[in-house]
Amino acid sequence: MKTEKISELTTNRLSVYLRCLNELAVAGVETISSQALAEQFNLNSAQIRKDLAYFGEFGVRGVGYYVKDLRQHLLKILGLTQRHPIAIVGLGNLGLALANYQGFNQHSFEIAALFDDDPSKIGTQVRSGLEILSIERLSEVIKSEGIDIVIIAVPAAAAEKVLEEVTEAGVKAVLNFAPVHLNPKPGVKVKTVDLTISLESLSYFLANPSVDGVSVDYRDFLRYETGTNGSGR
Amino acid sequence: MKTEKISELTTNRLSVYLRCLNELAVAGVETISSQALAEQFNLNSAQIRKDLAYFGEFGVRGVGYYVKDLRQHLLKILGLTQRHPIAIVGLGNLGLALANYQGFNQHSFEIAALFDDDPSKIGTQVRSGLEILSIERLSEVIKSEGIDIVIIAVPAAAAEKVLEEVTEAGVKAVLNFAPVHLNPKPGVKVKTVDLTISLESLSYFLANPSVDGVSVDYRDFLRYETGTNGSGR
Repeated sequence: MKTEKISELTTNRLSVYLRCLNELAVAGVETISSQALAEQFNLNSAQIRKDLAYFGEFGVRGVGYYVKDLRQHLLKILGLTQRHPIAIVGLGNLGLALANYQGFNQHSFEIAALFDDDPSKIGTQVRSGLEILSIERLSEVIKSEGIDIVIIAVPAAAAEKVLEEVTEAGVKAVLNFAPVHLNPKPGVKVKTVDLTISLESLSYFLANPSVDGVSVDYRDFLRYETGTNGSGR
Repeated sequence: MKTEKISELTTNRLSVYLRCLNELAVAGVETISSQALAEQFNLNSAQIRKDLAYFGEFGVRGVGYYVKDLRQHLLKILGLTQRHPIAIVGLGNLGLALANYQGFNQHSFEIAALFDDDPSKIGTQVRSGLEILSIERLSEVIKSEGIDIVIIAVPAAAAEKVLEEVTEAGVKAVLNFAPVHLNPKPGVKVKTVDLTISLESLSYFLANPSVDGVSVDYRDFLRYETGTNGSGR
């Protein structure tokens, strides 16, 4: 792998390629060229080749990509060949929705622990049968369950304290839904899901109806170049 | 405004600049240079100038930007000087979480209607006092309330049908939380929130601990160039 930094947009696109390869594998397709991959899924073939070139030589001249092999490579690059036990902190409506979210199960992510500080919730079970534990057991259970990703779904005022506690317990990756800017320690990655930014991009579209109105599901990730993320920032 | 297409990443960055200007306005700052703006909020000054240049000449030589003026310009560009009444379809845990989400209120977004098809939910009120209406009243209420953005929070199997119904009622912008790829009609924009992609980017970080682990809250939007989104795609 090249030593230059890989942008988060690149990894997002790898996620998209992986979804495409999953579909192809299910359909029994064994090999595919970058052109055919691009056409079938509304992607950009030059971008596909450029993104994959960061990680090695996966294409075979005259053949294209072996679907199963490339899929396996992408799983490995994205760290998805190992199981990721996830804890959710805060079982309000959002936390409950995430605890029951169907999208996680088909991947290597597994909701493995739930924490709240509300005595009326502690000890109750969510739909999957998992029990909500006291926040006081956070550090102990993170270690015993090998939790490596924590989802923060507490009110904004409580989020920084939760981040500190999970960081102290050794967690390096956090998905934050609290509407607040968090300041992680070096070596800890926080991704904040800001729903208002998604709405503002829709608002911009409404104010500028001449802009492209296609679904952004997949195309979203390819409309932009990787850009210069190797240095200087 | 230039006629070339503005990428969604650009509008996302405009959203970030707007948040920064809001903070500056509250702090009583009247003018700021792109350099100072960049330093204070961990942004990139060349990117700021490039992004704003799409929309006009906002900087004043020797002064920088007038905070209030630029804020007003950004609000207008993003379509935030007008009110956006929003409907949520599907009041499961996720829909309820969104209905009560505090982040929307401070902006021009207003949750104005809630719909579900579950008779045990119809007629009940959420925390804000808003009543959950029957899905059968969708088209009528979208028109009477002037709803221009719909949030889809129904199970995956029901999402496409809801998209069709809201499209028929004249809605042009949809935020989709169902874990499914939707196919909107031309002129309708769908943004799908795919939580698994966020998790996969965290997984990539865990698999490659050498990559930058800083919070991506704000920096996320500036690490990538705008790229070539004007033509060819």
